[in-house]
Amino acid sequence: MKVKNLVGQRFKERPADCVIDSHALMVRGGYMKYVGNGIFSEFPALRRVTSKIETIIREEMNSIDGQEVLFPVVMPAELWQESGRYDSIANELVRFQDRNKSKMVLGMTHEEAAVQLVREYGQSYQQYPFMIYQIQRKFRDEARPRAGMIRVREFTMKDAYSFHTSQEDLEQYYQKCYDAYNRIFKRVGIPEVVTVASDSGMMGGNISHEYMLLNEVGEDSIVLCSACDYRANLEAAENIVENISDNVFSSLECIETPNCKTIEDVCNFLQSEVSASCKAVVYQKNSDDSYLVAFVRGDYEVNETKLRNLVGEDIHSAEIKADSPLVAGYIGPFELSEKVDYYLDLSLKGIDSLVAGANREGFHYIGLNLERDIKNVSFVDIAKVKDGGICPCCGKPALTIKRGIEVGNIFQLGTKYSKSMHMQYVDKDGSSHNPIMGCYGIGIGRLAASICEAKHDDYGPIWPISIAPWEVHICCIRPDDEETKKAADTLYEELKKQRIEVIYDDREGIRGGQMFADADLLGVPIRIIISPRNLQNNKIEITTRDKTVNTVVEVSDALDYVLKLKEQLYFELNN
Amino acid sequence: MKVKNLVGQRFKERPADCVIDSHALMVRGGYMKYVGNGIFSEFPALRRVTSKIETIIREEMNSIDGQEVLFPVVMPAELWQESGRYDSIANELVRFQDRNKSKMVLGMTHEEAAVQLVREYGQSYQQYPFMIYQIQRKFRDEARPRAGMIRVREFTMKDAYSFHTSQEDLEQYYQKCYDAYNRIFKRVGIPEVVTVASDSGMMGGNISHEYMLLNEVGEDSIVLCSACDYRANLEAAENIVENISDNVFSSLECIETPNCKTIEDVCNFLQSEVSASCKAVVYQKNSDDSYLVAFVRGDYEVNETKLRNLVGEDIHSAEIKADSPLVAGYIGPFELSEKVDYYLDLSLKGIDSLVAGANREGFHYIGLNLERDIKNVSFVDIAKVKDGGICPCCGKPALTIKRGIEVGNIFQLGTKYSKSMHMQYVDKDGSSHNPIMGCYGIGIGRLAASICEAKHDDYGPIWPISIAPWEVHICCIRPDDEETKKAADTLYEELKKQRIEVIYDDREGIRGGQMFADADLLGVPIRIIISPRNLQNNKIEITTRDKTVNTVVEVSDALDYVLKLKEQLYFELNN
Repeated sequence: MKVKNLVGQRFKERPADCVIDSHALMVRGGYMKYVGNGIFSEFPALRRVTSKIETIIREEMNSIDGQEVLFPVVMPAELWQESGRYDSIANELVRFQDRNKSKMVLGMTHEEAAVQLVREYGQSYQQYPFMIYQIQRKFRDEARPRAGMIRVREFTMKDAYSFHTSQEDLEQYYQKCYDAYNRIFKRVGIPEVVTVASDSGMMGGNISHEYMLLNEVGEDSIVLCSACDYRANLEAAENIVENISDNVFSSLECIETPNCKTIEDVCNFLQSEVSASCKAVVYQKNSDDSYLVAFVRGDYEVNETKLRNLVGEDIHSAEIKADSPLVAGYIGPFELSEKVDYYLDLSLKGIDSLVAGANREGFHYIGLNLERDIKNVSFVDIAKVKDGGICPCCGKPALTIKRGIEVGNIFQLGTKYSKSMHMQYVDKDGSSHNPIMGCYGIGIGRLAASICEAKHDDYGPIWPISIAPWEVHICCIRPDDEETKKAADTLYEELKKQRIEVIYDDREGIRGGQMFADADLLGVPIRIIISPRNLQNNKIEITTRDKTVNTVVEVSDALDYVLKLKEQLYFELNN
Repeated sequence: MKVKNLVGQRFKERPADCVIDSHALMVRGGYMKYVGNGIFSEFPALRRVTSKIETIIREEMNSIDGQEVLFPVVMPAELWQESGRYDSIANELVRFQDRNKSKMVLGMTHEEAAVQLVREYGQSYQQYPFMIYQIQRKFRDEARPRAGMIRVREFTMKDAYSFHTSQEDLEQYYQKCYDAYNRIFKRVGIPEVVTVASDSGMMGGNISHEYMLLNEVGEDSIVLCSACDYRANLEAAENIVENISDNVFSSLECIETPNCKTIEDVCNFLQSEVSASCKAVVYQKNSDDSYLVAFVRGDYEVNETKLRNLVGEDIHSAEIKADSPLVAGYIGPFELSEKVDYYLDLSLKGIDSLVAGANREGFHYIGLNLERDIKNVSFVDIAKVKDGGICPCCGKPALTIKRGIEVGNIFQLGTKYSKSMHMQYVDKDGSSHNPIMGCYGIGIGRLAASICEAKHDDYGPIWPISIAPWEVHICCIRPDDEETKKAADTLYEELKKQRIEVIYDDREGIRGGQMFADADLLGVPIRIIISPRNLQNNKIEITTRDKTVNTVVEVSDALDYVLKLKEQLYFELNN
C-alpha cells in the first residue's frame, strides 16, 4: 500500500471537539469519521487495526474452546420480553416497529439470542460445558456518547456466552476466560490492564470482573490497595469505616439551628466535627416516585450503585415537594416519617454522639446515638470508598482511587437468563435444571482507542506491532531522485515478498518533515528512511516509532535488520 | 473439533416450513436457527462457511486495490435525506427515532455512508480512482422473506464503492471488478454463475450486471440466447417482436361484443387471433393514484420494471372505480379518455388490423390500425420477453427463460450520489466535477445458501473444499475398541499438525449409519472412516462427499493420501 493511495486524509490541527488525545489523533490521522452522535465510520487505517484485534481475540477465544457463531443485530421484541429486559431496560434499548407493526429491538448485548440459539441443543447434560461467541455490531442508545471511540452508541463487540451444569464448572471456565483476556490485552500491547471486581449492573448475576486500563481520561473510578492486590470498581468496592468510641455519651437533645441547611452550616454553627454528623441524601424510586433517604457520615458520599442494588430497583435524585413528609435541609433518621424508607450507612455505626436533622424546620438533634435511640437499628454499606480508606482484603488504610477505561468484562450470570427463558437440561439422574451461564465481552473499537490513549505521543499513536495498521513504513525522501526511488522501490518489493505489511510513502513534492508527520500519525512501529544523503554512503536509516531504535545500516543489510527487528518487537509483546 | 462438542444439533426430519432443499438441509444440519421473520442466527458450522467466503471475497477485493472500511449500521436520517432516498424508498428502509427524537435509519446499503466518508478525502483529482469496501450487517425490511437464507431481512453483505474522474476509468474498473467477481464465484465452487444485464432499480445509474446462479428455486427470471452469449434479467431484457404485414387492411368498425371482458372472450366471439388483439393492463401511479394503461399484444405480458422506468415513478395495479374514465373490460387505445396516460408496446407495431376495446361497455373495435388511426402514434418496449423470442444481440429466435438466484451485482452508478450529496473534486485545470461512482455487492449468507442449493444431494450439502466448515471428517466406527480409537486419535492429531481443518466423530454408542448421516449433513469434502474391520488389514477407508473417491489405503499412507487429495480438490476449484 502506498501512502498516496491510502483513503483517509491527515491534518495538523487538533479538532476543537476532541476532549481526549486518542480521539484527536485518530481524527487527525485519518482513522475515523463522525457520522452522527456516537456513530463513526472506520477508514482503512483503523479497519486494519480493528481487524487485527479481532483476529487476536478470535485466536484466544478458540484456544479456550469457544465456537464462533453469529446472532442478528435486529431481534423480535418477544425474545427480550422472555428475559424481562424489554421492560426493565430504559432508553438504551432501541425499540421500533417493522413494516408489519411487529415490535423489534436492536441488540445491545446478546444473552437472549444466545439462549434462544442453544435452548434445544443444550437439552442434555452431555453437551456441557460449551462456549459460543460472536464478533458483531451492537447499538446502545447512550445518553452521553463521549471521547471518540471510547463511549459510542454503535460498536463492534466480541461477546461470548458459556453454559455449565455446576457453579464449580462455571468458575473453572471463568478462570480460563480470565486468563485468555489477560493474554489478549498482553498481545494487543497493553499488559498493564488490571482486573477489578465490579458491579454486574443490568447483566444480572453475582461475581464479575472488569478489565481496566488505568488512565486519567477513563470514566470509571477504580479502588486499588497499595499494600495488597485488592482492586475493585468504585461502584462495587466495599467501604470499611471504623468509628472508635471514646465512651462519652451525651443525651439526645433537639436544638434550634436557624438557616443551617447543609452539613457545613450545622457543623460551623455547632462547632462540631463533620465526621460526627449524619448526612441525608434523598432519592425517589423510578417505579412510583416514593421517597427513600440514604444516611451517610458527613464526610462520605453515597454510592448509588450499591444503594440501587439494595433497593432492588432503579432510583433517581429526589425533587422534594412541599407536601412531602420530608423537611428539606433538616432530614434525620430519628423520628423520620414512617412513610419514608431509609438506609443507614455503616460509616454511622459506633459513633457515640451524632448531629442529625430533627425533621423539623430549623432544628437538629445533637447527642444522637443510633444504636441507643433507634429501635432495631441496622446498617448497610452504601457509601463510596475514599482515598486512604481501609482495604477490605488486607485491612490496611491503603486504598487509592484511580481513573480507568473499561476494556473488557466477564460476568458469572448464574441462571438469570436460562431460568427466565426456560432453558433446561436433563441431568444424569433424569432431573431437570437450568444451566448456569457466564458472559464475556470486549468492545473492539474502544480497545483500539484505549491502546491509542495508552500508547501515543504528541505526534500520533505508537501502535504495538501486533495491531499496527502496517508493520513497516518506508519514507522515500526525494522520490524524484532516480537512485533513491529505485532503492526504496526495491526494498518495498522485497519486504512485501517477505509478507511484511508495509506502507510506502513515495509522494513527490512532499518535504521530509511532512512525510515524517504523516508517518507519526500512522504510528507504524518500524520506519525506514531512504534519502539521497544516506544512500551516498550506501546507507539506509531505520527507526522505531517509539524512538528506542534509531540507526543507520548498509543497504544490503536493511532487509535482514528489519526482519529481525520485527521479530524482536513481537517477542517483546508476547514475553 | 469433535462432533460431540459441536454446538448445533442435527436431525432427520425435513422441517415442514422449508420450501427449498438448501433451507431444509441447513436447518437439519445445525447451520442456522430461525430468530424472527427473515432473521436467523448462524451456528458454528455455518459461521465457518461464511467466514471462509468472507476471506475469499476480501482477498479478491484487495487484489483489485480495494481498501476495507466499516460504515455504521445505524445512520442519521439526514444522510439519507441528502441523497433523497429517505423519502424515495418505501417500507424496506427501517426508520426510527433515538432517545433524543432524532430520526435514524438502518443501513440497507451504504452509498450515502461511502460518499460521506470520502467527501473531503476526494477533493483533488490526484486521489482518484479509489475503491472502498466493507463486510457488514444490513437490514432490509422485505415484505416477503423466503427460502431460508436466500431472501432475508438481516444479512451480512460485502459492499464496495469505487470513485472515478471519468466514465472510461469507471468502465475499466468495472471490468476489473467483473473479473474479480468471476474469480470469487469460481473459488467458492460455483463457476457456473453467469452474468446478466440487469435493471438498476433503486440504486440509480445505468449499466449494471447481476451474477446469477441458474437454479429452478431462484426468484429471478433470466433470458438467455441459445445461439449467442446474450443474457439479461427478464426485468431488463429487450423484447423484439416483428409483425409482418400481409397488406390486408380493414376499415375501422365498432361492433357489439356482449359479455366479452377478456381477450379470450373477444377472440372466441370474433373468431380472431389473440396475436391480433390489443390487451389493456391498467396501473395507477403511487404518487397521486392517476391511471395509466399499458397496451400490449394479446399474447404478451407487461414488464412492470420497464414500464416503471418509463413512467419515472412507482406504480401499482389499478383498482378501477365506477367514476373513473375507464370502462373495465373494454379499454382500447382508440378514443381513450384524454385524462388517461397510455403506452403502446412495440409488439403492437405493424399489425394491419387489430381488435381492441372501444371504451364503451359491450363494444370493441375491429380493423384498428394504430399507425393509421392514431395521430402521432409511438411505441415503447414494455412487454416481457417470451420463450422463443428474438435475441436482441444475434437476431435469432433463440431466447429461453430460466430461473436464477442473484448471488452478486455490480452497478455503474454515475453521479447520482456524488451530485445529490455535493461531493466534488477539483480537476487538473481547476474545474470542479462530481466523481463518477460504481458499486458492487455480494450477500454472504445468500451465497452460502446458494452454494448449498447448487451442491447437495438428498442427504446434505456437498460443500466445495474452499468454503466447507472443515476439510476432513474422521468417523471412528467403534471408538470403544481401543485400537480403533487409538488409530483415529493419532490421525486426528497428525492432520491438525498439518494444519488441516478436521472434525472428528468419536462419539460412543452411535451406529455407523448415524455417524455417516451426520457427516453427510456436515458436508465435509474428505471423509476418513476408521473401523476395526479395515484396521485388521491395516487399512483405512477414504471417500469424498461427492462420491468421486471411495478407496481403502494402508494406515501408514493415509496422511499422505489425504494431503494430496486436499491439494487436488483445491486445484480442481481454482483451475
